[in-house]
Amino acid sequence: MYSCADGRFRGDDVVLDKAHLKRSRRILNGHLWIFSNEIAENLKNFVPGSQVQVYDHRGTFLGQGYINPSSLISVRLLSRDRDPVDREFFKKRILSAVRLRSDLIGDRDACRIIFSEGDYLPGLIVDKYGSCVVIQFLTAGMDALRETIVGLIDEVLRPETIVLRNDSRSRLLEGLPLYKETVKGTLDVLPVIRDDGMIFEVDPLEGQKTGFFLDQVENRKAFKNIAGPGRGLDLFCYTGAWSLSLASGGARVTGIDVSERAVDQATKNAERNALQDRAQFIKYDVFDYLKKEVHSGKADYDFIVCDPPAFVKSASKVREAVRAYTDLNAACMRLIRPGGLLSSSSCSYHMKKEMFLEMLLSAAKDAGRSLRLVAMRSQAMDHPVLLAMPETEYLKCAFLVVD
Amino acid sequence: MYSCADGRFRGDDVVLDKAHLKRSRRILNGHLWIFSNEIAENLKNFVPGSQVQVYDHRGTFLGQGYINPSSLISVRLLSRDRDPVDREFFKKRILSAVRLRSDLIGDRDACRIIFSEGDYLPGLIVDKYGSCVVIQFLTAGMDALRETIVGLIDEVLRPETIVLRNDSRSRLLEGLPLYKETVKGTLDVLPVIRDDGMIFEVDPLEGQKTGFFLDQVENRKAFKNIAGPGRGLDLFCYTGAWSLSLASGGARVTGIDVSERAVDQATKNAERNALQDRAQFIKYDVFDYLKKEVHSGKADYDFIVCDPPAFVKSASKVREAVRAYTDLNAACMRLIRPGGLLSSSSCSYHMKKEMFLEMLLSAAKDAGRSLRLVAMRSQAMDHPVLLAMPETEYLKCAFLVVD
Repeated sequence: MYSCADGRFRGDDVVLDKAHLKRSRRILNGHLWIFSNEIAENLKNFVPGSQVQVYDHRGTFLGQGYINPSSLISVRLLSRDRDPVDREFFKKRILSAVRLRSDLIGDRDACRIIFSEGDYLPGLIVDKYGSCVVIQFLTAGMDALRETIVGLIDEVLRPETIVLRNDSRSRLLEGLPLYKETVKGTLDVLPVIRDDGMIFEVDPLEGQKTGFFLDQVENRKAFKNIAGPGRGLDLFCYTGAWSLSLASGGARVTGIDVSERAVDQATKNAERNALQDRAQFIKYDVFDYLKKEVHSGKADYDFIVCDPPAFVKSASKVREAVRAYTDLNAACMRLIRPGGLLSSSSCSYHMKKEMFLEMLLSAAKDAGRSLRLVAMRSQAMDHPVLLAMPETEYLKCAFLVVD
Repeated sequence: MYSCADGRFRGDDVVLDKAHLKRSRRILNGHLWIFSNEIAENLKNFVPGSQVQVYDHRGTFLGQGYINPSSLISVRLLSRDRDPVDREFFKKRILSAVRLRSDLIGDRDACRIIFSEGDYLPGLIVDKYGSCVVIQFLTAGMDALRETIVGLIDEVLRPETIVLRNDSRSRLLEGLPLYKETVKGTLDVLPVIRDDGMIFEVDPLEGQKTGFFLDQVENRKAFKNIAGPGRGLDLFCYTGAWSLSLASGGARVTGIDVSERAVDQATKNAERNALQDRAQFIKYDVFDYLKKEVHSGKADYDFIVCDPPAFVKSASKVREAVRAYTDLNAACMRLIRPGGLLSSSSCSYHMKKEMFLEMLLSAAKDAGRSLRLVAMRSQAMDHPVLLAMPETEYLKCAFLVVD
């Protein structure tokens, strides 16, 4: 380990490699990650998850964070100053995240309370569904703080139930085990939340992500406002949030999903909101369903919502994913009447916004259609993007007129 | 002029240069402009504003449009097929633009009915303010169609007043004169429009652009929803649309503009909406006002709206404009309390979205603040972006948390 004559560097100091000065400038600009090849020391000496002080090669203090020598992202910064990173520090951060939601979106039944780096708390995700809170610890450093964080969330939000969804595969990259656990209360009765005037049952333990797609909340509302009445499809409909939002706006929607469980829940959610006459759900592979529809020669949908799960799980798979997105979107465009609407999303971080728009253009060419963009949206406001860290933005959602 | 053995090319045909095949592919992809250096013939032979058929060097038909040999953008395409481009053609285009607004935004007092290339009608802008319609003919080709278009707009929209705002400087590039004219009805009483629950007086003959900034309508509404109560500034406030929107949401706002006429109108608009206690307007140079405020050491605004007029009038002036934008935004950030909001806009096409975001980052560094992006917005939906033509998108509007 590094030590320094002036005694300032301690055992838990990390010093950046001189050759990577340029990158430390990136850090000075507000980025929170330090990669393994940017660190001068032998990383093996560090305990995974332990807190560290970060200095550049000249000894200039850059901030405090936690380290994981076995991750490519070795250090994630928590703070830029020397004040202790202790329970009080985390309490302040959590309160500030709660206040931001209250300022921006008011009191909402369901929302993301903490969005990792987007709330200066790398590796921590906290979602609220009514009186149930779901927490994800995604890194060794944040996992080491589990007791403190769970205690603080309990103190600040006072939920009846706390669930840990520590089954994200990204934990494997951090050397952490996958598990799910209810650490406070029970899930004997699943939380029912209100979103945009409708009610949904959420399954925090078994649902996708933490049970509900909070990142599309505002996009669903905005699309409902422009889609109006009319007939449409909701592809990869999951538990029916897009479908029901559109149906509540007067549309007739068919939701398609390959998961029987999802389709059952969507149907239940439609009944729960007395929308079963306007929103129906079919268990079917989306790609097969589209082939069938295109083959039948119909092209008269007023709108289609295409919000697929992440196709691109890694940077190396981008090319094939772009092909799949292109075919999928071209099929949608073929089924929409001239002047109809497409809401097309991608939640893959590796699919950059520019690639996404190029993909849409090339799908339009395949389908022989012309596209007009009326809104290019991203994740909801309770998933704030740290501007210095493009990695904190992942959702693309385009509203298009298909001419 | 070009002529062809099979008799298909007529006197009004334009043939693209072989060397520019790549660019004609851009046209095949949906772009509507053909530049002078892409055309094989001697451009001087064409009458400015006349209609032409466009072919590639192999004789493949590409579309129909109009030509201006003295403009760098020599041809703008109106159609991709061989059907006649006549009165019926333009009527269909106008009706389709009207239907799109009715589908997307419903019946709104004030809206942009036709957005040039964004409605497949290059060179034509039509804005509606209640029973008054303002038309801009921006190119020789569209100007040549003036009688037809004015007649159709009258037939379709049945306005009481029609104003021609043919005083945009871009007409000079097309060799057209600058003038303003009321061609139907009178402006003895200025139109009063309703926007987001408030009323505004619009001056179609003397106001900036066509009298009101329609492109920010949705952004104002969205920012009001997140800004809530609190105290803020509205920079370059013009006739007070941002200020009054925010005041109607409970905020206390001071609007700053260097134009006495604008400040007077804003004050009148505040009184008209009984918001004069919450929205005040000061005639002051914005840059001087910010200097004064920064110098006074206050940094406690809950929000600032910064929506300057276009700084970047040409591609060659981008660098100095970026400097001006940076200083302006850094000053705003210095005046905002930690966790407060900045709505920062740029309406310069030459300031691309990526440059705009980089400018914000560099302003944040200058001001010693960290930024979180909660929404990256663009022009309102009645200004649709032709996806194949990046030139049709010009507005950037970022909602930022200033930490």
